[in-house]
Amino acid sequence: MKGESAHSAAAPMPAWTERLPRRVRIVEVGPRDGLQNETNVLTTEERARFVDLLAASGLTDIEAGAFVSPNRVPQMAGSDELFARLAGREDARYWALVPNAKGLERALACRVRAIALFTAASETFNRRNVGMSIDESLAGFRALMPRAGAHGLKVRAYVSTAFVCPYEGVIELERVTPIVRELLDIGVDEVSIADTIGRADPVSVARLAGALLRVTAPERLAFHFHDTLGRALANTLAALQCGVAAFDSSTGGAGGCPFAPGAAGNVATEDLLSLLHGMGIETGVDAAQVMEAARFLQNRLGRPLPSRCLAAPS
Amino acid sequence: MKGESAHSAAAPMPAWTERLPRRVRIVEVGPRDGLQNETNVLTTEERARFVDLLAASGLTDIEAGAFVSPNRVPQMAGSDELFARLAGREDARYWALVPNAKGLERALACRVRAIALFTAASETFNRRNVGMSIDESLAGFRALMPRAGAHGLKVRAYVSTAFVCPYEGVIELERVTPIVRELLDIGVDEVSIADTIGRADPVSVARLAGALLRVTAPERLAFHFHDTLGRALANTLAALQCGVAAFDSSTGGAGGCPFAPGAAGNVATEDLLSLLHGMGIETGVDAAQVMEAARFLQNRLGRPLPSRCLAAPS
Repeated sequence: MKGESAHSAAAPMPAWTERLPRRVRIVEVGPRDGLQNETNVLTTEERARFVDLLAASGLTDIEAGAFVSPNRVPQMAGSDELFARLAGREDARYWALVPNAKGLERALACRVRAIALFTAASETFNRRNVGMSIDESLAGFRALMPRAGAHGLKVRAYVSTAFVCPYEGVIELERVTPIVRELLDIGVDEVSIADTIGRADPVSVARLAGALLRVTAPERLAFHFHDTLGRALANTLAALQCGVAAFDSSTGGAGGCPFAPGAAGNVATEDLLSLLHGMGIETGVDAAQVMEAARFLQNRLGRPLPSRCLAAPS
Repeated sequence: MKGESAHSAAAPMPAWTERLPRRVRIVEVGPRDGLQNETNVLTTEERARFVDLLAASGLTDIEAGAFVSPNRVPQMAGSDELFARLAGREDARYWALVPNAKGLERALACRVRAIALFTAASETFNRRNVGMSIDESLAGFRALMPRAGAHGLKVRAYVSTAFVCPYEGVIELERVTPIVRELLDIGVDEVSIADTIGRADPVSVARLAGALLRVTAPERLAFHFHDTLGRALANTLAALQCGVAAFDSSTGGAGGCPFAPGAAGNVATEDLLSLLHGMGIETGVDAAQVMEAARFLQNRLGRPLPSRCLAAPS
């Protein structure tokens, strides 16, 4: 048909596709963020099985556990044993959430090679979550960086409630950027900007991502979306359009935050992969294998997880 | 703090926000698309109650039923009675799906003022769904337009499987645009571009929306997304960024298509509203009232609907 080429010419690729990253790195947080609020607590053996299924998918970054108080977060109680089993494995980078210097020592004892720190852009949220001010959190990170550096650890830091706080409401961008800059100044390798209760929107994401990418290399930035209101993938698109090239997600869409009223699950890794692969963006991750891991978790938990791909008719 | 204004200056609004429509029109398709595949069939009384709850939210466009074969689609069996009750009401425009001239006569007998026609961009899908070729569908529409026009009916037409067909796979843009142009040429007021099985992605949406808006006014175009893989709101964002200003959605996220293997629910109206209102786009719709309607439907159906907002902790 003669008209076809004319139609094609009339339908160029949208300009923003030129700014999309060709490859995106996914930081799988299911075994930590996904499970830390789960009343149906997995055994360490089951967590290890979940981590193994995730690693088999080609995921390069897996947050496998947390060195927090087992009394406060029993879901993460076996993390020492879990990381000891992962020690020396080169198939992926296994991250451990470390709240403080004591947690760092536990992590080092288990030969952990990559740690995640946690603060927030909301004072109230940070106080309720870790019992100190943001400045105190940052001072603590600064104090432990030399020891982390001496052991060659990779370090990432979460900035929680970077858009909306369940206690303080909207968090202005001007409160977030100085915290990110200080974290990078401290020497953190990567900052993960978290929409902890899933209230961000594409405009606020694009504004913050744009502002941060003017002062930060994309290699040092990740976004961490929750899908509470179904906006996670729209927010991901807005971040991708700014050039963000790393995203946190949780297989099955499990998760939430015990200290964040209103938080629902992280965006599901398989849903994120579906969006990225659908747009021709590489991840190096086998989506079918991630679905295996998601089904394992769903079967183990015995209830439907929020993942769209898991629920989709095949 | 001195730095704040500098941060603000460093975070302008993203350029694409200038192209966003200030106001979006939502076409609520829950009472038709949402219920037509539901095994738990609502009575006409219950459907009328659902429609009333939707109309109370300020929705201006509600597809309330279909004049299809009650043997084939028993869910829509009471549509004559339902539309007779709605006749003369000015609070919203009540659309009826009309498959053919016989359906049009039924609609006219019930004093319907707005009808929706149905075709597809995939030959196989159209044949399986309505038993004729796309050309035969278009010829049928052309034949019934004079009678529709004589009665002053508003007419919209769906182009189903405009991105991916469950039988034919990817549908190239060049197959979609001529069908849309012919529908507009026939005199249809509005064309709704449907991602029937929820496999579109933001790049393909932006390409098709961009191409259509170069030849069509935004007032004559709507997009109709399903959330099968969780991409509906990301696809909505991509369409908004092109200037699309009308979207179909289904309260509760109910729906699917009996003739489309792999189709899951429409995007939930409340999730769509959450995205739009979160971005500062007006709709004139009261989201809390839509949630009332969603809860009514969920209670009636007795199972969790796919809507994210319905499941979100309050």
